[in-house]
Amino acid sequence: MDKKILMVIIDGLADRPIDGKTPLSSAKTPNMDKLASNGINGIMDTISPGIRPGSDTAHLTLLGFDPYQCYSGRGPIEATGAGIDILSGDVCFRVNFGTVEGEGSVFDKTVTDRRAGRISETDELVKAINENVELDVDFIFKRGTGHRGALVIRGEGLSDEITATDPKSIGKKVKKCKATRDKGEKTAQIVNSFMEQAHRILDQHPYNKEREKEGLMKGNVLLLRGVGLTPQVPSFEERFGMKLGVVAGTTLIKGVGKFLKGDVITPPGVTGGKDTDLSAKIEGCIEALETHDFVLLHIKATDEYGHDGDFEGKKAFVESVDHNIKPLMELDPQEVLLILTADHSTPIMVKEHTADPVPVIISHEGVRVDDVSAFSEFEAYKGGLCRIRGRDLVNISMDLIDKSQKFGA
Amino acid sequence: MDKKILMVIIDGLADRPIDGKTPLSSAKTPNMDKLASNGINGIMDTISPGIRPGSDTAHLTLLGFDPYQCYSGRGPIEATGAGIDILSGDVCFRVNFGTVEGEGSVFDKTVTDRRAGRISETDELVKAINENVELDVDFIFKRGTGHRGALVIRGEGLSDEITATDPKSIGKKVKKCKATRDKGEKTAQIVNSFMEQAHRILDQHPYNKEREKEGLMKGNVLLLRGVGLTPQVPSFEERFGMKLGVVAGTTLIKGVGKFLKGDVITPPGVTGGKDTDLSAKIEGCIEALETHDFVLLHIKATDEYGHDGDFEGKKAFVESVDHNIKPLMELDPQEVLLILTADHSTPIMVKEHTADPVPVIISHEGVRVDDVSAFSEFEAYKGGLCRIRGRDLVNISMDLIDKSQKFGA
Repeated sequence: MDKKILMVIIDGLADRPIDGKTPLSSAKTPNMDKLASNGINGIMDTISPGIRPGSDTAHLTLLGFDPYQCYSGRGPIEATGAGIDILSGDVCFRVNFGTVEGEGSVFDKTVTDRRAGRISETDELVKAINENVELDVDFIFKRGTGHRGALVIRGEGLSDEITATDPKSIGKKVKKCKATRDKGEKTAQIVNSFMEQAHRILDQHPYNKEREKEGLMKGNVLLLRGVGLTPQVPSFEERFGMKLGVVAGTTLIKGVGKFLKGDVITPPGVTGGKDTDLSAKIEGCIEALETHDFVLLHIKATDEYGHDGDFEGKKAFVESVDHNIKPLMELDPQEVLLILTADHSTPIMVKEHTADPVPVIISHEGVRVDDVSAFSEFEAYKGGLCRIRGRDLVNISMDLIDKSQKFGA
Repeated sequence: MDKKILMVIIDGLADRPIDGKTPLSSAKTPNMDKLASNGINGIMDTISPGIRPGSDTAHLTLLGFDPYQCYSGRGPIEATGAGIDILSGDVCFRVNFGTVEGEGSVFDKTVTDRRAGRISETDELVKAINENVELDVDFIFKRGTGHRGALVIRGEGLSDEITATDPKSIGKKVKKCKATRDKGEKTAQIVNSFMEQAHRILDQHPYNKEREKEGLMKGNVLLLRGVGLTPQVPSFEERFGMKLGVVAGTTLIKGVGKFLKGDVITPPGVTGGKDTDLSAKIEGCIEALETHDFVLLHIKATDEYGHDGDFEGKKAFVESVDHNIKPLMELDPQEVLLILTADHSTPIMVKEHTADPVPVIISHEGVRVDDVSAFSEFEAYKGGLCRIRGRDLVNISMDLIDKSQKFGA
């Protein structure tokens, strides 16, 4: 069997100390510590020192892609995640179904809810949009989970140099899309026409009329943001010659996987939330290794606990992850190179992503095992990897399983 | 109050060991050691490994600017330091008043002193140059301290692809300015015309006649070097959104501060030399923190002791710095992020700048405090920062005070 790479990314895992301790450093993590003992350790700047990563840009980087070249906003990632097969040159948006009230044009109306009362059944509304909106260019509109969706505009001469229509807070009017440079003018006009037509269709739609009767908020506006022009990006397999599998429950990470043309695997019970079935995820991951050369396993909830500022919750979840990853420890280290790391820090005291470097372990037959024997922010930097960049991780790992090409003679 | 950043740069502080010791490692530095204990430590390549930094390029880098893009020679920095408001496209020179003897054109004469006997009163001479030299383009000539000055040539189609007129040693003839590429031809002609006119004006000037009578050397030639074309560079505040204050006594560093449109602060008694009033400097620095978001404190004399090859002098000055920075240690670590580092090494045994990395401490609430408990070349690399680049220091610090932007979602 060919050697495989398994990259386990625990989202927002790393932290800043409070009274000298972090959730990770204070959690009991016998399995992770054993991995640290058996592997080579270091710290890693996912993007570069001092640059706060998003989860999307971080994952692209950890998969060996330069986000400054292949990331143009969240739109293309979300559109891919929603199942749209985007092409180079497409202009993509994240979409929320929202609620507006008032008279006149959609841009004269006020946003009363940015999630349309957490509307969840949007199939009929999406169908009505796709059947009735008429633009000078093609478009694809798909729903995501809940109130979410993605819009792709496809045609000649489109540009992402335009502004969002989502005012980002309630009580404000829907924003007109404006060009930030001359070449965005045409696209801005198309977007504004889409906004107006979509609102008219949604506001009159029988499903919304019914919601209104029931005292629910109408999903009568589409709020667009995260615009991005789809860049030309090779697939992961084209770039590295390895078949990619992404085991994830979170839409954004699934989007990254699809964006790089990997297989996205979401075993039953995997939610991408605090309630996810970790053991199902690990099982799915081990299965995925049989049919893929490179598997990325994404575990989300640590980041949520970080955003919530919940030290004890984060610590307990880390312990649960440690408990559940035991089967990964039993994979043959001659066959599978195992990476354990995070995409960024989400410190309890900041409740947001920060650029503090993350600890990283690489475990495989033949790595230069160092003296580090615990997985934590306070031990990792003492390891044999010193301080590396996220962008180099795939190359380092491919080299360790003897799959990299020689440069020179 | 918004959080602030204070970057203390001890010029040429780092060294190479002699009998296993450096001035820094052998100096008694209880305050710096305490800072090391409370902070996160590392070593830093100011520009990049093996590249010997100038103090100007090093400071530009430490302030987050790429010297390969924004540094074109010392001319623009000196001109700014001399108080000239330089514009993109200006050609700038460092100038020395020198002494020449001989017959004929200025370029047939021999330099007998490169500092005109350390002439110090040059106001009248500078005035005569500005009033009487006639060029096809505009120029600004200002005096600096002592025999120093700065020249700026401003007009269409100028180039810095020309050679210096300063022969750099005595007993040699003044050098004709030559184009190193075709596009420098016009500028070289202008410079040579300036050289000739300036010499005629200075040689006949009553003040020089008087010096001659008194047996002093005439300041009868302007020796030009360090030519540079002013690049288009945003201000520090434009780039980072923080108001910059630079506390310094040295012309070159003041020039860097003004070049990035920071406020330059030189408290009374601060000379930029071995005799500087360190306590006045520290006081000025603490005051500057009240009105600026980012303060750079520059301490010069360590570099001079290095250039002199004076181990004991350097060690004693380090101890004096340690004693004087005590008030900085008492700043609230929740409010002020404190960086202690150097711009480069100036080893006793080399007497020049070297690229040996410098130790760096970052101290602030929330940094991952490591095991390092002394500030020295032999301890710093064991710290949690590992090895970083000077260019990343502002980004890392902004992230730690939660002022950086997220890239991605």
